[in-house]
Amino acid sequence: MRYHRIPDESVRRLPLYLRALLFATHDRESISSGALADVVGVNSWQIRKDFSYFGELGTRGVGYNIEKLKKHIRKILKLDVLHKAVLVGAGKLGSAVLLHRGFSVYGFDITAVFDNDPKKIGRKLGDTVIQSVSSLHTLKRRNIDVGIIAVPGDVAQQTVDALVKTGVKGILNFSPSYISVPKKVKVLTIDIAMDLARLPYYMPRNHGAG
Amino acid sequence: MRYHRIPDESVRRLPLYLRALLFATHDRESISSGALADVVGVNSWQIRKDFSYFGELGTRGVGYNIEKLKKHIRKILKLDVLHKAVLVGAGKLGSAVLLHRGFSVYGFDITAVFDNDPKKIGRKLGDTVIQSVSSLHTLKRRNIDVGIIAVPGDVAQQTVDALVKTGVKGILNFSPSYISVPKKVKVLTIDIAMDLARLPYYMPRNHGAG
Repeated sequence: MRYHRIPDESVRRLPLYLRALLFATHDRESISSGALADVVGVNSWQIRKDFSYFGELGTRGVGYNIEKLKKHIRKILKLDVLHKAVLVGAGKLGSAVLLHRGFSVYGFDITAVFDNDPKKIGRKLGDTVIQSVSSLHTLKRRNIDVGIIAVPGDVAQQTVDALVKTGVKGILNFSPSYISVPKKVKVLTIDIAMDLARLPYYMPRNHGAG
Repeated sequence: MRYHRIPDESVRRLPLYLRALLFATHDRESISSGALADVVGVNSWQIRKDFSYFGELGTRGVGYNIEKLKKHIRKILKLDVLHKAVLVGAGKLGSAVLLHRGFSVYGFDITAVFDNDPKKIGRKLGDTVIQSVSSLHTLKRRNIDVGIIAVPGDVAQQTVDALVKTGVKGILNFSPSYISVPKKVKVLTIDIAMDLARLPYYMPRNHGAG
């Protein structure tokens, strides 16, 4: 089965749906677009439209088969294969990332952690021994395809350059800087402060309440 | 000046533009939609469309005045007033959030931190003394409008309920659970693993490279 190019905004919502299907407790085999809409906070017509990109999945009056839907979403998002990832930066945010249990749910395995702080190198973070960034080059041939960087902004670009050389195809950037990569590498930048910046728009104005 | 309702996807992009205008080094007073597009990785027509929601801002052949643009985006996103926030959960992720320097840039001031771990209560996280969650109710009348929760999933809902009682209008949820709130409160859930789940879609398939 070939899939057509899916709009970025639909791709953005697919993990939301997958998350809801994975975490919500279901006592049934099927879920309606309306029920899914209630969980994820997206309109049901939007959900039906997003799912329409991958063919006819729903049954009128019954809804979507949950197992099939999960499988389809995983396949489209290329989460149906294991992705080996490495983390660079074992500070507070890096530690939170590594110890976050959610990654395995989506098929990610964080196999190695790197830092440049001599005090951290050799110590364990969870079950993983922190290695020196100077040994990043040893990752070649280990089939790592995702790099996660949680390093200070001033070393972000050099970290990315080293990761790109190891052959990663995607980078999740938690550093507060813009980074440049070759066209074949995809970067997603996560800025938790910027996420918060969307919130007040939806909040009622506070007129000096006391 | 009144603003029309702006589509959610445009609201999602506005902080990206603001971030680029704040962090990028500018030696000029103006920026073209094309130059901004290069920095944020959004099409220039999309940028022009997003800006069209708040009236004529650009000058043909010159671009957008950077200071004016920042001011407009802040105003639309309601970031032109200071938002007082509190953090509940002083674990690794909570600590990373509190120590993240980015929040003040967008007009957020995290004024208090709470945890339920007796070993943490009374200790300092950055410049802020960690308080017991049992004293959350003291926040009433302190004009806190944003709550950030970084607590385990099993206590997320009770934390949210306590925050809602203090009068917050928005919640940034880092907990791995769905939470329910009254309609007047807006919730944004951030799942860093879910963010990563979008990445492989854009990466070339790895056919067993060795």
